[in-house]
Amino acid sequence: MSDIPAAPVGGALLTRAGNRRTFLRSTAVTAVLAGALSACKRAGAAPEEDEARPAPAPAPAAPPSPRAKADAMDAMHEARMKAFPAKTAGKGNQPLEPRIEKGVKVFELTASKVQWEVEPGRTVEAWTYNGQVPGPQIRVREGDRVRVVLENQLDESTSIHFHGLEIPNDQDGVPFITQPPVKPGERYTYEFTAPNPGSHMYHSHHDSTRQVGLGLLGAFIIEPKALRPIERVDHDYVLILNDGAHGFTLNGKSFPATEPLTAKLGEKIRIRFMNEGIMIHPMHLHGIHMTVIDRDGWPLPAPWKCDTLNIAPGERWDAIVHCTNPGTWAFHCHILPHAEGDHGMFGMVTALVVEK
Amino acid sequence: MSDIPAAPVGGALLTRAGNRRTFLRSTAVTAVLAGALSACKRAGAAPEEDEARPAPAPAPAAPPSPRAKADAMDAMHEARMKAFPAKTAGKGNQPLEPRIEKGVKVFELTASKVQWEVEPGRTVEAWTYNGQVPGPQIRVREGDRVRVVLENQLDESTSIHFHGLEIPNDQDGVPFITQPPVKPGERYTYEFTAPNPGSHMYHSHHDSTRQVGLGLLGAFIIEPKALRPIERVDHDYVLILNDGAHGFTLNGKSFPATEPLTAKLGEKIRIRFMNEGIMIHPMHLHGIHMTVIDRDGWPLPAPWKCDTLNIAPGERWDAIVHCTNPGTWAFHCHILPHAEGDHGMFGMVTALVVEK
Amino acid sequence: MSDIPAAPVGGALLTRAGNRRTFLRSTAVTAVLAGALSACKRAGAAPEEDEARPAPAPAPAAPPSPRAKADAMDAMHEARMKAFPAKTAGKGNQPLEPRIEKGVKVFELTASKVQWEVEPGRTVEAWTYNGQVPGPQIRVREGDRVRVVLENQLDESTSIHFHGLEIPNDQDGVPFITQPPVKPGERYTYEFTAPNPGSHMYHSHHDSTRQVGLGLLGAFIIEPKALRPIERVDHDYVLILNDGAHGFTLNGKSFPATEPLTAKLGEKIRIRFMNEGIMIHPMHLHGIHMTVIDRDGWPLPAPWKCDTLNIAPGERWDAIVHCTNPGTWAFHCHILPHAEGDHGMFGMVTALVVEK
Repeated sequence: MSDIPAAPVGGALLTRAGNRRTFLRSTAVTAVLAGALSACKRAGAAPEEDEARPAPAPAPAAPPSPRAKADAMDAMHEARMKAFPAKTAGKGNQPLEPRIEKGVKVFELTASKVQWEVEPGRTVEAWTYNGQVPGPQIRVREGDRVRVVLENQLDESTSIHFHGLEIPNDQDGVPFITQPPVKPGERYTYEFTAPNPGSHMYHSHHDSTRQVGLGLLGAFIIEPKALRPIERVDHDYVLILNDGAHGFTLNGKSFPATEPLTAKLGEKIRIRFMNEGIMIHPMHLHGIHMTVIDRDGWPLPAPWKCDTLNIAPGERWDAIVHCTNPGTWAFHCHILPHAEGDHGMFGMVTALVVEK
Repeated sequence: MSDIPAAPVGGALLTRAGNRRTFLRSTAVTAVLAGALSACKRAGAAPEEDEARPAPAPAPAAPPSPRAKADAMDAMHEARMKAFPAKTAGKGNQPLEPRIEKGVKVFELTASKVQWEVEPGRTVEAWTYNGQVPGPQIRVREGDRVRVVLENQLDESTSIHFHGLEIPNDQDGVPFITQPPVKPGERYTYEFTAPNPGSHMYHSHHDSTRQVGLGLLGAFIIEPKALRPIERVDHDYVLILNDGAHGFTLNGKSFPATEPLTAKLGEKIRIRFMNEGIMIHPMHLHGIHMTVIDRDGWPLPAPWKCDTLNIAPGERWDAIVHCTNPGTWAFHCHILPHAEGDHGMFGMVTALVVEK
Repeated sequence: MSDIPAAPVGGALLTRAGNRRTFLRSTAVTAVLAGALSACKRAGAAPEEDEARPAPAPAPAAPPSPRAKADAMDAMHEARMKAFPAKTAGKGNQPLEPRIEKGVKVFELTASKVQWEVEPGRTVEAWTYNGQVPGPQIRVREGDRVRVVLENQLDESTSIHFHGLEIPNDQDGVPFITQPPVKPGERYTYEFTAPNPGSHMYHSHHDSTRQVGLGLLGAFIIEPKALRPIERVDHDYVLILNDGAHGFTLNGKSFPATEPLTAKLGEKIRIRFMNEGIMIHPMHLHGIHMTVIDRDGWPLPAPWKCDTLNIAPGERWDAIVHCTNPGTWAFHCHILPHAEGDHGMFGMVTALVVEK
């Protein structure tokens, strides 16, 4: 999710000319409009050419015209769209390479507070693993021996729960049930054999409403020993939804700082949806359906199709998208106030860019 | 959803007499009650006959008795039930006949503000297509050539997204990605071949939290070239859920102004649920289960049964109800504050009336 | 859900010693920590031994150190965990034995207000059936003749809706549609033949936002004439979720007063999830997956697996857990603010205890 050509994203696909023809064919309406336009002494200009002109300076007491207000709103919307994908400091969900110790894959996670840029110019306090929101992506193979070493540099105790993994109880990460809390300044080691494959998560299980809301979470993916045919894809994306202290985010960023998903026409992608928030988020993909194959890492008995996939807190869903329809497709939570305000799109919005 | 006999709806099925027998058989309780009733000098009256009598005027300082308070509350509940289905001005989701131009089905949609009566006496500002909430129902056949001409009579720019349709990217309706916004006073034309069949929607994709919340939405149904056997039904209903500026509504109306669904005993109906709101709505049908066949217009690999179907924002679900149980069945969102308050039922409530 | 050994629950499975070794191996970090500890004159103590010591009394103006604050928070968390399962007065969802009258199973339900202890020391007003929250569990067999006699000792009218049961319309419990409201002091009798088997509910259908929120609800289970093989289990648990006036509860209690589910290693349990609240609750089971077999009492065409099962208001889901992983497994709503605050876990939290 990094090498996106800027061109097709953000307004380059305008089709106004094609529609102006249609517009002008509709003569009755044109006449009405022409009258209106003439009244404000702009009759000679086609409406779309007006956009580029400065509006005449209004008399001091005159309120802005509806058109001027619409133009002002649209300019805010356009600026947000054209800024996508916007650069921000920091990137979460980055693959974490383990070091190998006597055949064990060892992952080091340090919990600490950082400043995190959620969208351009909006920087918040984040509680992170290794300075990332979401934490680094851990990806192992079914049957691997895995060690996760947690160092707590926070002012609060913490722990890690491996959400979805069927591991021995004493590695489950629940303070005062399966382990003591990991105090500020302490280290704690988890070790287990990677069990049931699929899309899982890791996150704090101590003061978790605050700690997960502030960023102590990440993807834990266990690849199966053998891929099912439907799992053979060209790109494998993780999309972690959150709605805590940082607002509505996809992989720790708010639109326009979210990252587009990209594919070439005809390619297949896998999207691993994970909800680490406290609300549902029905993710709607424009233009192409999703084939849902796994739930919480478990293969569904029969895949099914949709364009709006509702992900509840704690759930993971894996979907395949066969990218047969070229273009830049909006992809967003369909709880509209999680995705758009009167200043334009924000929050849980990204795009799937299918390049010809 | 229009030719409902008034009789079976709203209180005509009372079975009090049958239960009075049971009531009087229970002598111990009758004795206790008789004492209580005697104390307020009403011992001679069976409790149910009391309802019709005026209560004696209370002394100035006396608070109302619990029974009087219960009667007052029940009277409000009864009035709402008996008002159903209540007449209001305006009706949404009406089939829109296209005109045919050289083999193309042309639908004209005009976005404008109107006053909309949500329930008797409650009229709100609505932003509508063709003056309806929901907008007119568009229904075409897979493979049809379709043109939708939007005229914007609002003070804001707008656009139409065809939610669920796999059409070319430049017809997708997302301002600054696939088209310019349609300014106040402008017209804009969409044209495409009807693709994947099923229950879809159309709605604004500009300032959409406000515009969809105020009513700029409608059903877009693509009938398949060939019906599956399970799709052969006697009635085909669309139920659009919303929870925006107009409150909790079904097809733009709040109970008791919602419209019942009707069928004759033994008939099959199809219900196309569509959520254009920002909250989930688990719709509960009393007395008969639903067989869910499609999700977002896509056939499920195997239909499944339920009586409470949770519809998340942006989702569509198609269910078949085989009307084998006669009567007037409550049918409502099971988030109870979306359906009932202490004044009685309101909002997302209707009924399925199965006539013998 | 009663005979839980206290030992494995609540902190007995600590594995600190094993991790201290790991901790001390990490010498670089130890050095840094040693410096910090030396600075507060506690260098000689291993961090974990510090927990048992009283902190030195701070100088009047000194704020508590981060470690002291962490210890104070952890002590609150630990106290809640160790209190589990906490004793409280009253227990809901208790099996209700019918009396048999001429072959009819007769269940008596009395609606009345009681004081209900939700968690130790927090007692609230509850509107109950037979003094229980949830009301008593009704369990009959498909084809049984069933009579339910409701006595209303509340100050409000009420009624009972049998949620999910396909019974004759005049037994459906909707005031002013299928019956009159049952006034304060009245009795009302429902009678029907137990229809479609599965996990159903009964609850008030009058002023229901308040009445169900305050406790007028219970499980109504209809056992099938013949069990499917997948239904043969060692324990059958009902888990009723609510989020009304009593806060976030499982079977009427808030953690630590919730009851654990228990099984021996290798046993199978069935969990009947029922949501009587107004919010979704995605229930997450640690360490072992669930196989979901029924929805609203109807068998799924093909069971599927998950570890986080989202239950919407009015829905019932039946899941089988094959208890192959021993230990005390946290089991909670994954909307984290329904399960944990900065004082520790509360609300919709319990545990599955799998004993070796």
